[in-house]
Amino acid sequence: MSNDPLVIFTPSGKRGRFPVGTPVLTAARQLGVDLDSVCGGRGICSKCQVTPSYGEFPKHGVTVAADALSDWNAVEERYDQKRGLTPGRRLGCQAQILKDVVIDVPPESQVHKQVVRKRAEARDITMDPSVRLFYVEVDEPDMHDPSGDLERLIRALKKQWNIKDVKADLHILHALQPSLRKGAWKVTAALHTGEDDDRPRIMHLWPGLYDGAVYGLAVDLGSTTIAAHLCDLRSGEVVASSGLMNPQIRFGEDLMSRVSYAMMNPGGAQEMTDAVRDGMNALFTQIAAEAGIDKGLVMDSVFVMNPVMHHLFLGIDPYELGQAPFALATSDALHLRAADLGLSLHPAARAYILPCIAGHVGADAAAVTLSEAPDKSDDLVLIVDVGTNAEIQLGNKTRVLACSSPTGPAFEGAQISAGQRAAPGAIERVEIDPASKDPRFRVIGCDLWSDEDGFAQAIAATGITGICGSGIIEAIAEMRLAGIVDASGLIGSAEQVGTPRCIPDGRTHSYVLWDGGADVPRITVTNPDIRAIQMAKAALYAGARLLMDKLGTDTVDRIVLAGAFGAHISPKHAMVLGMIPDCPLDKVTSAGNAAGTGARIALLNRTARGEIEETVLRIEKIETAVEPRFQEHFVNASALPNSAEPFPILNNAVALPQVNFNTGGGEGRGGRRRRRS
Amino acid sequence: MSNDPLVIFTPSGKRGRFPVGTPVLTAARQLGVDLDSVCGGRGICSKCQVTPSYGEFPKHGVTVAADALSDWNAVEERYDQKRGLTPGRRLGCQAQILKDVVIDVPPESQVHKQVVRKRAEARDITMDPSVRLFYVEVDEPDMHDPSGDLERLIRALKKQWNIKDVKADLHILHALQPSLRKGAWKVTAALHTGEDDDRPRIMHLWPGLYDGAVYGLAVDLGSTTIAAHLCDLRSGEVVASSGLMNPQIRFGEDLMSRVSYAMMNPGGAQEMTDAVRDGMNALFTQIAAEAGIDKGLVMDSVFVMNPVMHHLFLGIDPYELGQAPFALATSDALHLRAADLGLSLHPAARAYILPCIAGHVGADAAAVTLSEAPDKSDDLVLIVDVGTNAEIQLGNKTRVLACSSPTGPAFEGAQISAGQRAAPGAIERVEIDPASKDPRFRVIGCDLWSDEDGFAQAIAATGITGICGSGIIEAIAEMRLAGIVDASGLIGSAEQVGTPRCIPDGRTHSYVLWDGGADVPRITVTNPDIRAIQMAKAALYAGARLLMDKLGTDTVDRIVLAGAFGAHISPKHAMVLGMIPDCPLDKVTSAGNAAGTGARIALLNRTARGEIEETVLRIEKIETAVEPRFQEHFVNASALPNSAEPFPILNNAVALPQVNFNTGGGEGRGGRRRRRS
Repeated sequence: MSNDPLVIFTPSGKRGRFPVGTPVLTAARQLGVDLDSVCGGRGICSKCQVTPSYGEFPKHGVTVAADALSDWNAVEERYDQKRGLTPGRRLGCQAQILKDVVIDVPPESQVHKQVVRKRAEARDITMDPSVRLFYVEVDEPDMHDPSGDLERLIRALKKQWNIKDVKADLHILHALQPSLRKGAWKVTAALHTGEDDDRPRIMHLWPGLYDGAVYGLAVDLGSTTIAAHLCDLRSGEVVASSGLMNPQIRFGEDLMSRVSYAMMNPGGAQEMTDAVRDGMNALFTQIAAEAGIDKGLVMDSVFVMNPVMHHLFLGIDPYELGQAPFALATSDALHLRAADLGLSLHPAARAYILPCIAGHVGADAAAVTLSEAPDKSDDLVLIVDVGTNAEIQLGNKTRVLACSSPTGPAFEGAQISAGQRAAPGAIERVEIDPASKDPRFRVIGCDLWSDEDGFAQAIAATGITGICGSGIIEAIAEMRLAGIVDASGLIGSAEQVGTPRCIPDGRTHSYVLWDGGADVPRITVTNPDIRAIQMAKAALYAGARLLMDKLGTDTVDRIVLAGAFGAHISPKHAMVLGMIPDCPLDKVTSAGNAAGTGARIALLNRTARGEIEETVLRIEKIETAVEPRFQEHFVNASALPNSAEPFPILNNAVALPQVNFNTGGGEGRGGRRRRRS
Repeated sequence: MSNDPLVIFTPSGKRGRFPVGTPVLTAARQLGVDLDSVCGGRGICSKCQVTPSYGEFPKHGVTVAADALSDWNAVEERYDQKRGLTPGRRLGCQAQILKDVVIDVPPESQVHKQVVRKRAEARDITMDPSVRLFYVEVDEPDMHDPSGDLERLIRALKKQWNIKDVKADLHILHALQPSLRKGAWKVTAALHTGEDDDRPRIMHLWPGLYDGAVYGLAVDLGSTTIAAHLCDLRSGEVVASSGLMNPQIRFGEDLMSRVSYAMMNPGGAQEMTDAVRDGMNALFTQIAAEAGIDKGLVMDSVFVMNPVMHHLFLGIDPYELGQAPFALATSDALHLRAADLGLSLHPAARAYILPCIAGHVGADAAAVTLSEAPDKSDDLVLIVDVGTNAEIQLGNKTRVLACSSPTGPAFEGAQISAGQRAAPGAIERVEIDPASKDPRFRVIGCDLWSDEDGFAQAIAATGITGICGSGIIEAIAEMRLAGIVDASGLIGSAEQVGTPRCIPDGRTHSYVLWDGGADVPRITVTNPDIRAIQMAKAALYAGARLLMDKLGTDTVDRIVLAGAFGAHISPKHAMVLGMIPDCPLDKVTSAGNAAGTGARIALLNRTARGEIEETVLRIEKIETAVEPRFQEHFVNASALPNSAEPFPILNNAVALPQVNFNTGGGEGRGGRRRRRS
């Protein structure tokens, strides 16, 4: 056994013996310990900070003496004076190993640090971005052995960082010579790795050492809104998040009306492409301003979206997506230049677009898969991403199925008489007393319930303006629990229900949720409102149920609700309506904007890109439009909660009144088929 | 031994036995015979035409019966009626092998056909272009097994053509779906192979079968002129050639004045970049019009140029090339999009730029290397590409050296009192009677000598307007041979020489070459003219001599004169002037525009690109500016032919008069050093 000092790195546990005088960074590199460095050990970037531990370490079998490392040297002194070194820290490239020592690598000194996520069941993010910075010292040109400046830079990257086969973007050639000379033959290169050919590309050069940040954007391009997260590509931190209405809305609220617009108007697809790209650029300018950074430092971007948005963003006419067999122009992931998509970020910024799963199940669904990892789940998980379309995934580590179901925009408050987007003033929570049949509610922007003191003052500024998506779900579910609406979806009359809040409204009835007096419109839930929600939730349920059929199961172990809507929905109320399959309520969780999270994962970890590309190929795609059982499930699921499925867990938790308001008139739809309620 | 029929292909000599009924194309493919096909054997492209031979073939040991192949079938009948099949030809995909047969594959049916070059010593061109066409039948989309149209196209290319890892340019996605449907799921794809990653890229799609041509451009971007050859990428044929003055001339006649312009004027480099790219586009429009083709069918392009033009064309400031150590931004070959260089050809057209050899020896010199292949020569060859700079290469298959020498523009007629570009009216050939000292000459645009009958009428239209580069070389050499000018370059007086054509001209004398009367200017050769040519030829010789020193040789086996100027120069006169080393005159040949030819080779054969990239790395670069002996050689070479070198072969062929017109005045430069004359 060698007499060289023993070095033990934590948290990795990697250990080895090194000759006296070996710098800690050198030892770390030789052991494959994840210790960052931009300057390559020249003592100028300070990214290789470590914390030596002293004293007894029975676990490791070593005692660390106070003089285990060399004394602070001039480089560390200077750095400390200039920027301040955290007490107890050393620069790994300066501190030399003299005796046995235990060295801790703090998370901020790790290249592949973990990015913390709040939810335990979600996939971890390990930092491994496509863009990284490398400081190099380049040989000066030699007339007697002529070679291009670029070729010497590439040689330096190979020699000093062991990075092979580096290429340069054309624009690099324009800035190369001045940068090298300004930096006295020392430059920091931003390299992008992870094109299809996996050759690193020089994207940018800074004269001398650049130890600032570079950024990436994770973008969820929805039919209605575009949401972007601006991330620091070194720390993984989200430095700003922002959203914007999709400017394509003026061409059509929902996807099919945009496809129609493209079909009916020559140049219409291009108009919509321009609109969404313009909107994207406006959003990027806004988010960079919010974060106070130069947009030119955004060097990578990841985009997820449904298939129609995918095509329109890429400039592909979505015509084929409007009709069977719903053929995508391309389903594979795309590695592009942001500039090729008309985006003004760094001139060499890359754009990665996740693969699509099928003609109706897009890159957004793939991003949900990446975030929620059903393919890695031990138990059987149903993942529902509720938007204008619902993308549904069901599976576990053995098998994953996916489909899309056309829920329409009712869940977003559209097609609802008092419906509105989730904004201050919108009713978002509803409770109805089963005895009095009177409601109380909360509106967005106010923490008080409507029957609490001070409510009127608290909402004075916003007023009560309508009902948002989660509000209408709760209202109808509460009406069903209070016996105001029957299993077929019919609202009873004042007499049938026993409350004057049920008022005649044409040939049916409406329920008055709020009457603010003569000056403001009454907010009611109408029978057509219930019909719209019935259609939407029946589509959603039928899709989920179809996947359960395909998998040969009647139950799921857990349900994940994704999407902004999923974050606000009450699982109990969703189940009362029969939106989602019967399941213990504590097994229904919200994943928030899982598509956006998936985009962020792909932005921060380039290995995840390859992974999701492979996973998507293994997902079994089900096309609801041509499945005969989908129609049957849909009809059954029109009832509240369902005319065929037993929902035993739900029935155990709540008592659904056995009311029937069908008096034989024309509105008895659903009653005919109702087998139980 | 099998009883299957024996098939022998000529000219390859490949042979094999195949079951009765095997199509000829199938047999060819299995044997690796070079037999073309775009449609993959579907009988629609007619590219696989073969000529069966019948009768006795003792050489091959077979007798071919009249019924060795199946009868003409309906496909061949239809093709013959529609387009006419050359008598004796069959379609290889239709004709089936029934008995032993000898099949000739005519050159036009070979993919890798040879392109004929006129000169025996030059490198052959084997067709292997980067862009090729492939017809495929693509699976229709299936809702139950969804996949993108692109992914199915890529699958078809793999299955039907065994082409792997195909990628598509972004713009292909825009045209993909309509093309597939218009062609009823049959398309012809243009694939580009030979990017750095060697993955084929889909550049263009035609619905159904496209059996027209696609084109490429080989461009020699000179400081003075841009010359382009438009080539058919299937046949290799040059369908049009055209040239244009380099529009950068307005920023400076020679390279260094353009570098100065960039240094003195902010934005000057960009102005020159724009100018040359605009000129290029004008030239491409012109050449496409001449050939009567759609410029959008130009899918590949190759560019060669000197380092300053290289940088200016790429948009790189040439500042560093104006001063030691003459560092190139990049010396490696570049694979680019033509669109990235501002060129409007096919939107996906590629641009390949040959590697540069050194800061003064550019991609044009590399192209000369490719064309003239000194690295493959058994004997020691000196290659001189004469332009504003002379690029000089010396070597054989063991070792090749290269340098550049600043000859200046005198060889192009600039800096000469009566000098002009080579255009009708310019004197291009000169003879002087040693006895009478009277000249006769020929002008461009007229086949008669000036002393022949009808000359005056023949040149009436153009007149006699000046002397071009080759004319001034001949005039001075003839003056030297006739004893009108001495070894130091001094013109004698009328008395010294014995002709009134020697007239006083300031402090020296001039020789009257042509006196057209009072109405037109006299054309004379002045002593400053001789001085300019002396400087130019001394630079050229000194460069060549320096390389000979480095190689330790005093002689070369042969000399190749490249460049347009080299094509017109008289080897004897060049040697009398001491422009080129002493060498048997029959070993001095002209290679024409070898740089342009090299560009054409790289255009037509993608393997040649990799070859020249490797060759260039092996060439030893000599920087004349820092070689002390260059100055010495230059001074010696100022004399006519040389004040230090013996030129024994020349002296054996011609008698150089031992005259000396130095009367001790101020103009005796060179006489002082003259050791022999």
